[in-house]
Amino acid sequence: MVTLGATAAATPNEAFVQDVVISMLADDKAVREVILDSGAMDSAKPGTIHVNMATISVAFAKELTSHHAERGVEYISAPVLGRTEVAAAGKLNILAAGPGAAVARVQPLFDVIGQRTWPFGHLPYRANVAKIAANFMIACTIETIAESVTMARKHGIAADELLGMLTNTLFSAPVYKTYGALIAQENYEPAAFRLALGLKDVRLALTAGEEVSCPMPFASILRDNMIDGIAHGDGDKDWAAVAKVAQRRSGLSG
Amino acid sequence: MVTLGATAAATPNEAFVQDVVISMLADDKAVREVILDSGAMDSAKPGTIHVNMATISVAFAKELTSHHAERGVEYISAPVLGRTEVAAAGKLNILAAGPGAAVARVQPLFDVIGQRTWPFGHLPYRANVAKIAANFMIACTIETIAESVTMARKHGIAADELLGMLTNTLFSAPVYKTYGALIAQENYEPAAFRLALGLKDVRLALTAGEEVSCPMPFASILRDNMIDGIAHGDGDKDWAAVAKVAQRRSGLSG
Repeated sequence: MVTLGATAAATPNEAFVQDVVISMLADDKAVREVILDSGAMDSAKPGTIHVNMATISVAFAKELTSHHAERGVEYISAPVLGRTEVAAAGKLNILAAGPGAAVARVQPLFDVIGQRTWPFGHLPYRANVAKIAANFMIACTIETIAESVTMARKHGIAADELLGMLTNTLFSAPVYKTYGALIAQENYEPAAFRLALGLKDVRLALTAGEEVSCPMPFASILRDNMIDGIAHGDGDKDWAAVAKVAQRRSGLSG
Repeated sequence: MVTLGATAAATPNEAFVQDVVISMLADDKAVREVILDSGAMDSAKPGTIHVNMATISVAFAKELTSHHAERGVEYISAPVLGRTEVAAAGKLNILAAGPGAAVARVQPLFDVIGQRTWPFGHLPYRANVAKIAANFMIACTIETIAESVTMARKHGIAADELLGMLTNTLFSAPVYKTYGALIAQENYEPAAFRLALGLKDVRLALTAGEEVSCPMPFASILRDNMIDGIAHGDGDKDWAAVAKVAQRRSGLSG
């Protein structure tokens, strides 16, 4: 970014001197350390806008909202949809929620980063709920493909043969084409999104469900299968590698 | 069909006087009664082709293959993808497997009925495996949407709001649009495909998996949720109504 003309801030505190601060960190823990524990907002002027693009828990998004309000900093949750290749092409989808005027002010920045912004109202945590739901649905897609392909393979149908038909008919969505190809080719490295992070996201879905008393049986299955994958050394592979669990459990090498 | 110029056969036996017989019956039981128990093929000339478009079990497809071979009748499994509205528009996708020459001979008929034929080789049962895998994936999609939408709703996000974003980004496939709309509008009647038949298809997937020692944990969840739906009086509603289970279990009325 610096090579493209951005200015490197030596500390989080220095970044919060700006009018708008965009952060994209790995998880709750990283955001807590960099944004809260470091005292980053001590230097912020009233009206500074902080855009948090991390995939964080619903509970922590609510905590951040209160924390920013106490310091007079506007808070926007704006997690994104898209793997690294999508981000590089400027084609991210941005799920944004926060005070209307603040969101309108940073919209020109969103227009540079993403292909489209999807508004989820003025309560920041709702963008996180939508992002958690989306990632949960991707994980469900991976498991769905894994179980179908494994069953079909054991009946003598190649993964490509089955998926060629499916992704050209009912399942003609990017998510089936992307993960179908990774699973058919058993192409799990390098990881665009690590299985260990996938487990984190499934945990976010289970927790978001539990907070509002919503059972999520598919998420429970995903959690167990991802733990199984990690136990077999696949935590750093792409999360599509959870397909190896179905394969292994059915006695195929994987 | 008769009003369109077809000839009604008074008995299955009478139908098998023709060179090509196409049947599309509900399940294993119906096919067994109409095709096997009735002695339908007793009148068949050698080389008659029977195209079975029913969604049947893998084991029964193998049994039918032997049975036809003993009587000198060519057997093709050709289940279809598409709800009633798709069939009416002549847009079915046909999954076909059977002896190459026989499939080639009936291809002109497939071209009238469907928009495309997907070949699955010369072993008829493989078309049934592919169809069972496809229906299993549709059922997984319904459950995936149901769990996401219910979790999001309990966090204050309307089904339409979440699905509008998802079906215009990663999940832009017909299956998400069709079932997403039915679930968002809670529009389960009249049924294009009944929940009770959906349970039959999930059972076919579980059985096809068990026959080749392939665990299918998502299918197990689907089975329980569909039984739950039937227990609550929804067996004759569209199978998208399995979404009411997630809703009800999380304390929402449904």
